[in-house]
Amino acid sequence: MRLVYTIDEVRSEVRVARELGKTIGLVPTMGALHEGHLTLIRRAREQCGFVIVSVFVNPTQFGPSEDLARYPRSLEEDARKCEQAGVDILFAPSVEEMYPEGFDTWVEVKGITEVLEGKSRPGHFRGVTTVCAKLFNISQPNYAYFGMKDYQQLKVIQKMVRDLNMPLEIVQVETVREPDGLAMSSRNSYLSAEERQAALVISRSLMEARKAFTDGERNAKRVQELISNLIKVEPCVHIDYVAVVDPESLRPIQTIDRSAVVLVAAWIGNTRLIDNIVLDSACK
Amino acid sequence: MRLVYTIDEVRSEVRVARELGKTIGLVPTMGALHEGHLTLIRRAREQCGFVIVSVFVNPTQFGPSEDLARYPRSLEEDARKCEQAGVDILFAPSVEEMYPEGFDTWVEVKGITEVLEGKSRPGHFRGVTTVCAKLFNISQPNYAYFGMKDYQQLKVIQKMVRDLNMPLEIVQVETVREPDGLAMSSRNSYLSAEERQAALVISRSLMEARKAFTDGERNAKRVQELISNLIKVEPCVHIDYVAVVDPESLRPIQTIDRSAVVLVAAWIGNTRLIDNIVLDSACK
Repeated sequence: MRLVYTIDEVRSEVRVARELGKTIGLVPTMGALHEGHLTLIRRAREQCGFVIVSVFVNPTQFGPSEDLARYPRSLEEDARKCEQAGVDILFAPSVEEMYPEGFDTWVEVKGITEVLEGKSRPGHFRGVTTVCAKLFNISQPNYAYFGMKDYQQLKVIQKMVRDLNMPLEIVQVETVREPDGLAMSSRNSYLSAEERQAALVISRSLMEARKAFTDGERNAKRVQELISNLIKVEPCVHIDYVAVVDPESLRPIQTIDRSAVVLVAAWIGNTRLIDNIVLDSACK
Repeated sequence: MRLVYTIDEVRSEVRVARELGKTIGLVPTMGALHEGHLTLIRRAREQCGFVIVSVFVNPTQFGPSEDLARYPRSLEEDARKCEQAGVDILFAPSVEEMYPEGFDTWVEVKGITEVLEGKSRPGHFRGVTTVCAKLFNISQPNYAYFGMKDYQQLKVIQKMVRDLNMPLEIVQVETVREPDGLAMSSRNSYLSAEERQAALVISRSLMEARKAFTDGERNAKRVQELISNLIKVEPCVHIDYVAVVDPESLRPIQTIDRSAVVLVAAWIGNTRLIDNIVLDSACK
């Protein structure tokens, strides 16, 4: 594996790989790699002859009062994990490499970015789509891998790729959970032992929602209330939103006719976590 | 030459050309091809093994009160000219092909789009950058060709490519003029005989500005006044702006130390024309 810091290095490595006829896979991350990321990397490794992982804590997707400064950074450890996972290139650019002086071009998906995370975190998705557009242009991958934990992000990226005719395919990968159900997230490291225990109510409430759905519940409002009521029992967990929406448009639905996604965002102390579950015919 | 209407056809033709090791050149146009466009095409033909011309009157770059409906359309004639010029693919998509139902992703360059044309035509450059990003992603060219007549557009596209790390090079090509000096533009066809005669004051005033610069004039305000005063003599020409700016930042300058661009936008009846001239050491 090569650890590279510049766009030119990525381009020249990709050129060689292309000439060898290799399929290129990109796994964009903000580092602090956990089993969720490693699942994305393994999927890329199976599907592609050349795997690039980017580690970049992208400042443009953080709001002014968010956790950019304290976001966990562990490049050495990340590099070790990537090496073990058979990654070809780990691309860890500086902020200046990605956003040089005078940078001022933005890619923005409207509509589905204005709800849920987009409402709670203004400007967040504009930062995400802009940095992903850049990473796609730099790596020119055939496939890029995103986890379903960040469900809205996945849908926003898919829409960007479709609307702008970007020549790659987005591969979506199931959320990876700790044995006790907590969705893996680099932000879990912020939690104290008590907070971590309390945070379990999020995934537990989603599992309860799935159970209700499997048992025949189709009323979105009742599913939403079921989750809210469970979470409210934990005094140190504060709901930002609980939403039952159409899986593509992310618009609220009243009745779960075919499928829905249930999304939760909540604060546990100073830590904001998100999680979601898809309700469809695959739910047993 | 193949005339194609769908994105898929372009992609599959480009794939074959790439496999043959050919360099891809793209000339994005709105059709109504004139000698200015043909100069771009010839340049592409010299430099590339595979030349794509797109003809698409892009609705998103027209304001609600602008000339989208009456913009000249002449695909048959355009196809004949492209065929003669040795173009490989003429891509003439429908509006639905480029902007399907639900389309809502935009590429926006800030800063240099907020002055001059951007000020007079709100939203114009967002439409231009978005459609160019799409055309670049569809064609994946090594080179894309733009004329200097639309100087600000050229700078905006160059900035988009640089900021978003798009894997292509923008080639800028000198403005082509009629024998009497009028900059070639598809919009010249709107002019009556008298208007066309009056419109000559624009290029004539720019030539006078160049002469003054060559004779030693370095005061931007005096250059600007020289042009304004000449244009004001024509009663049916109304100035939108006359600006003397830095060639890269497009910010107004006071003294022409090294180089400058002088840009003019003016109305002749219902027709809005733009023109410009670069003042630098190459001016003799």
